[in-house]
Amino acid sequence: MTRQTSSTRGLSRRSIIAAPVGVAFLAMAARTGFAQSDPLPSWNDGATKKSILDFVARVTTQGGSDFVPVAERIATFDNDGTLWCEQPMYFQALFAMDRVKAIAPQHPEWKDKEPFKALLSGDMKAVAAAGEKGLVAFVAATHSGMSVDDFHRIVLAWLDTARHPRFQRPYTSLVYQPMLELLTYLRANNFKTFIVSGGGIDFMRPWTEKVYGIPPEQVVGSSGVTKFEMGADGKPVLMKTAEVEFVDDGPGKPVGINRFIGRRPIFAFGNSDGDLEMLQWTAAGAGARFMGIVHHTDAEREYAYDRQSHVGRLDKALDEGLRRGWTFADMKRDWRVIFPTTSATSGAAKP
Amino acid sequence: MTRQTSSTRGLSRRSIIAAPVGVAFLAMAARTGFAQSDPLPSWNDGATKKSILDFVARVTTQGGSDFVPVAERIATFDNDGTLWCEQPMYFQALFAMDRVKAIAPQHPEWKDKEPFKALLSGDMKAVAAAGEKGLVAFVAATHSGMSVDDFHRIVLAWLDTARHPRFQRPYTSLVYQPMLELLTYLRANNFKTFIVSGGGIDFMRPWTEKVYGIPPEQVVGSSGVTKFEMGADGKPVLMKTAEVEFVDDGPGKPVGINRFIGRRPIFAFGNSDGDLEMLQWTAAGAGARFMGIVHHTDAEREYAYDRQSHVGRLDKALDEGLRRGWTFADMKRDWRVIFPTTSATSGAAKP
Repeated sequence: MTRQTSSTRGLSRRSIIAAPVGVAFLAMAARTGFAQSDPLPSWNDGATKKSILDFVARVTTQGGSDFVPVAERIATFDNDGTLWCEQPMYFQALFAMDRVKAIAPQHPEWKDKEPFKALLSGDMKAVAAAGEKGLVAFVAATHSGMSVDDFHRIVLAWLDTARHPRFQRPYTSLVYQPMLELLTYLRANNFKTFIVSGGGIDFMRPWTEKVYGIPPEQVVGSSGVTKFEMGADGKPVLMKTAEVEFVDDGPGKPVGINRFIGRRPIFAFGNSDGDLEMLQWTAAGAGARFMGIVHHTDAEREYAYDRQSHVGRLDKALDEGLRRGWTFADMKRDWRVIFPTTSATSGAAKP
Repeated sequence: MTRQTSSTRGLSRRSIIAAPVGVAFLAMAARTGFAQSDPLPSWNDGATKKSILDFVARVTTQGGSDFVPVAERIATFDNDGTLWCEQPMYFQALFAMDRVKAIAPQHPEWKDKEPFKALLSGDMKAVAAAGEKGLVAFVAATHSGMSVDDFHRIVLAWLDTARHPRFQRPYTSLVYQPMLELLTYLRANNFKTFIVSGGGIDFMRPWTEKVYGIPPEQVVGSSGVTKFEMGADGKPVLMKTAEVEFVDDGPGKPVGINRFIGRRPIFAFGNSDGDLEMLQWTAAGAGARFMGIVHHTDAEREYAYDRQSHVGRLDKALDEGLRRGWTFADMKRDWRVIFPTTSATSGAAKP
């Protein structure tokens, strides 16, 4: 990787690596605090990368008019479609369907009950026709009736063996390398990074620390009601029920942010209309703000979709983001690589 | 303060302060990593203090059989009666009643409606008779119908002027000095400290960072439903409604811990039966565990109450704690001082 930062972008690469000039420049830059290797090497140089680097520089420059104290450097990220892939459908939906198949032997009644019947007989057209309602049924049936600890193990076991239908890689290796770098870069600048996802909180927490460096207590998501029960052995357990507790999507995202974090983010990144209210809530605070949207424009390396997509539709937020000058990470234009090439994130995290 | 640590407790004070021996000892202790001034100076020496120091030493000793990685050093504290005073009644209840009086002019209908009528006419016997149901009415009426930001300001304004009826001090100065030291000590040992309180999350968050060093995102509490609304000016607001969302008390505490933190604590401190399930949940994990209970035994300096108290009843948890050998912080016996003598925590935090 060549050594380039926002402050060096005006110089040609040759001038940077020409030893005497380069060394002198770096020494000077080190004194002024600007010298470092590119913190976002997977982002192509351009307006998007510059807007990120500029924002972070502004809010972290002591004495500057946009300086933000460390405690208030809250950054929130959607997960599906923002930190990892969400096609051909949400990975949690694929998990739920795999689980339906896995536990079908304990549910003989499913053979005659839709949408289970369709899924078990391989009628994917009927499954698709059942839409979100069908999906909710799969999730309810597979995300309840066990302890939180058991569910944690089930998720990790699935991630260990399941492979993405197109890429044939573990799902946790289909995270976006540029976003991993962004998370690391923000944390290096004393941001606290949070996930704020419509996905299930219990589905994400088992692996977010290993894959994203985001610990469970910084994951906000949708949840079902959990019940405290005293086991016959005198050991308490937390049991997952099928009752919905909280949907962390759309207007639920600012609500979830307020409930879990209790501070307004100064930096938020999403990719769909489900993130619009989180971006609006972030934008409405005082002082410097960063609102980012991942735009899936790369059918070759990943997927291309926005206004018409059944998953991760980006329509209203696309209009509002364009109108208000939010930052778009255009996958094809801005991302040098999409997925990590190393095996660092492949396979599932161990508990 | 004399320099004493768990490792020096066997020595007489004189031997510590006798210069040559003391200096040599401290130098040696520094090399072995044990040297520091007493981290808990407001705790009297004895079994309680020793159990805290021993536990922290065990879980932080690299290579020891009880070593716990930093990420898993989760400590949860009840608030009312554990970190600050809760008599003659929960401070949040006093806040709600003050607010009823303050906004009564906007509610002429309260003059003829109980329990408001009783409170506004000063009939405290009738207020007491209305019990918890009356209190819920006061809270519902005063904790809803405004934005989260406005409520934040209302709480801070009240804390700025309100004084405790007996001690005539700001409520935020009626925190327990020994517990402040314990929080600091745990954080110095890379614990992440959380509040897990039956109190309202929006009532605590405006001041916990300044008073306890616990940021809003590490406060778990009871909450009402909050609604995202787009204002006429195009600015989004989060409005507090009177609908109960979550009661973080009793069996709700492990549920709240799981939902907000997503890890089981290894260290928990409470003071009443409302903390029993949190303590049981903490105790049921694998590895070293610390379960602590503040026992209010000091009517002179604070209050003395347990099994019969209408606030902070300690009955079942007292029995279970005694039977299972949990640690009791006996206020009279274990605490050298109760409240901070400095003005560091007096007055309310500014937003």
